[in-house]
Amino acid sequence: MRYEGFKTFTTAADGGKLTVTFDFGPVNVQGQEMLEDLNSLAMRLERDRTIKVVVFQSANPEIWVCHYDTDLLKDMSTEAVAREDAKLLDLQSVCERISKVPQATIAKLEGFARGGGHELALALDMRFAARGKFKFMQMEVGMGILPCGGGASRMARQTGLGRALEIILSARDFDADEAEAYGTINKALEPDEIGEYVDHLANRIAQFPAESINACKQAVYESIDRPIEDALKAEAYWLYQATSKTPAIKRFAAADEQGLEHNIENQRNWNELVMKVQEIN
Amino acid sequence: MRYEGFKTFTTAADGGKLTVTFDFGPVNVQGQEMLEDLNSLAMRLERDRTIKVVVFQSANPEIWVCHYDTDLLKDMSTEAVAREDAKLLDLQSVCERISKVPQATIAKLEGFARGGGHELALALDMRFAARGKFKFMQMEVGMGILPCGGGASRMARQTGLGRALEIILSARDFDADEAEAYGTINKALEPDEIGEYVDHLANRIAQFPAESINACKQAVYESIDRPIEDALKAEAYWLYQATSKTPAIKRFAAADEQGLEHNIENQRNWNELVMKVQEIN
Amino acid sequence: MRYEGFKTFTTAADGGKLTVTFDFGPVNVQGQEMLEDLNSLAMRLERDRTIKVVVFQSANPEIWVCHYDTDLLKDMSTEAVAREDAKLLDLQSVCERISKVPQATIAKLEGFARGGGHELALALDMRFAARGKFKFMQMEVGMGILPCGGGASRMARQTGLGRALEIILSARDFDADEAEAYGTINKALEPDEIGEYVDHLANRIAQFPAESINACKQAVYESIDRPIEDALKAEAYWLYQATSKTPAIKRFAAADEQGLEHNIENQRNWNELVMKVQEIN
Repeated sequence: MRYEGFKTFTTAADGGKLTVTFDFGPVNVQGQEMLEDLNSLAMRLERDRTIKVVVFQSANPEIWVCHYDTDLLKDMSTEAVAREDAKLLDLQSVCERISKVPQATIAKLEGFARGGGHELALALDMRFAARGKFKFMQMEVGMGILPCGGGASRMARQTGLGRALEIILSARDFDADEAEAYGTINKALEPDEIGEYVDHLANRIAQFPAESINACKQAVYESIDRPIEDALKAEAYWLYQATSKTPAIKRFAAADEQGLEHNIENQRNWNELVMKVQEIN
Repeated sequence: MRYEGFKTFTTAADGGKLTVTFDFGPVNVQGQEMLEDLNSLAMRLERDRTIKVVVFQSANPEIWVCHYDTDLLKDMSTEAVAREDAKLLDLQSVCERISKVPQATIAKLEGFARGGGHELALALDMRFAARGKFKFMQMEVGMGILPCGGGASRMARQTGLGRALEIILSARDFDADEAEAYGTINKALEPDEIGEYVDHLANRIAQFPAESINACKQAVYESIDRPIEDALKAEAYWLYQATSKTPAIKRFAAADEQGLEHNIENQRNWNELVMKVQEIN
Repeated sequence: MRYEGFKTFTTAADGGKLTVTFDFGPVNVQGQEMLEDLNSLAMRLERDRTIKVVVFQSANPEIWVCHYDTDLLKDMSTEAVAREDAKLLDLQSVCERISKVPQATIAKLEGFARGGGHELALALDMRFAARGKFKFMQMEVGMGILPCGGGASRMARQTGLGRALEIILSARDFDADEAEAYGTINKALEPDEIGEYVDHLANRIAQFPAESINACKQAVYESIDRPIEDALKAEAYWLYQATSKTPAIKRFAAADEQGLEHNIENQRNWNELVMKVQEIN
């Protein structure tokens, strides 16, 4: 798969890891060009089993991704629609498509992410932010709308209701530590630590089988959108989706031969064992 | 709208902010009078677009709102009902109605909130508590029932399952710091800080358009009660509910004219910019 | 009810508390014997109203419960199934059955819990872990599958989406403090504190009525699997399930006679009052 021809970001593949670096004009504005690029990126990722993990970062020292382009916003419809006629907006569709690509996706947040920029981050699987550099805000309520790139829908899936409502109704900046405390990001890290943390995580994931990464992702997303008994059935469905395509059986057979579970030394070293097992294919 | 004639609380309107101060007898008991007052308050708020935010506090130095009146509880039915015949209880109905008023609602917790008192707090959008003064408890399991003013239903929507179950099954006091760690409140604050924090937040929200506040609230509440694809459609529905009634388009047009997104200075100052934009109507 | 004849754990009843101590071979492997024992335990608990709370601990100084037996895993099917044909796996069924027993269940985690071992812990109501001794990991993605003992389904119900995805996609060890920060456990405790904390909690719960414990549990689990309006109706249903079988009315009548809510002294002492009220039956 070739990842080129984008206007708003550059890409670099390294083994199973793809790094996407936003680099567009003065502020990485989220306009038609970026939406088209993200859509095109998602289309390629959906057909790629070589890339296992995608890291999204920015070349701009202050801004990860800017808010949605006001040039598009000023032409929004002002006509109320019936519930049954509500259609997905462009930013919602693109973010949802990115959210469900088969790869693990990571936001490496070393600058501002406000409005639609933050909604894109929320659509990724994991978020890490640099202290002193990252800020996020959902300012939409102050503009007269609501976060409508999936932000109103995804916030409480990360933070619980009360904190989601404060974030969305206060329209104020939150820094990395407050984001960690509220749960919108996985962790706040020092600016000189975030690179290594994200690299280590991405390189680890990049060694795992593509089909088990996808099965894990889809099952987790599905899990909270249905009752537990249906979530468990989806989990069972995804198990065989994985075993039918990964070397799982060979790996368990090898572990069984080595008497894995009868050896306390092995049990102490699972953190390394799980990487060593990647040699069995 | 006139906010008067209540027995269990006083009210004070200040611009778009309404402060409700519980002040009823020795302990702010949650009885028939308070339920009627809250129902009547909700009815007025539902028709009011001037008030944008409501802060609930207490005049009692030790108690925010007391538990449900034992005089009512001792006459509860002891007859089991079939699932399909279960009807909402009075406290459930009132709390649910308060929960969905179009205004942003804030609990300023400077005293005990136990049983039904805490369930009322959980039904509000946001909760802030004073260290050393606030305690909460759901003692129902020890009385032989369950939190049935919406508490059993709302707890895990704030905290995740494990902590919700500990809170409800242990029937013990939790202080402000533990409440923050478990996620039942947004933040624990020092007693001399909570006033300013809540004022600042409420005054900020009070400047935003009524219709976008309502759209944000309803979309966030709806988001976790349905699968993500339906949540996104609800979000799109609420967008046009907002743009059809707020000055959103004018504000985006003004921002676009000023070249907002091409100016890094502006991007640094969104926290103030979003307040300045309130002048455009 | 007699709790004996198990191969993989011992049991000890003390008043309303049952302690289950895993003690099976070198590493407490989670194989056919443990699944049968857990199923048999659940069957007895479902019919027992004397036992109110169950604590699960381990006799092994390093391992709480080990992962699922590789001897069973190596014979898994490699055939993909249609969604509608996906059936619950044995570990899913056993964990789900344990999850819904009428007793409160507590995991006292003083050693490793990885893979299926951690999924069993996630199926219990509450989890407490000892610093320096506890580690958890979901290594399945690295083996070529996904956590399929309910782990993919239950993780985000505890932690929110982003942290659940990191846990499941990184396949790395997490210690007690990180588990607390991410929300998979209720609390991290010092190794010399966890015993007293869990004892105090379990002994407290063991004094409450069996039927209100069950009502609380089932209502909380149901609450996040359905929209709020249906959750509230389930809450009302469980109320009468409780009042029809517990001494709730007598307790409220006694509290009312003593003028509970008109006495600020009583309001200060609810933490003890709720235990004293257990004398009224």
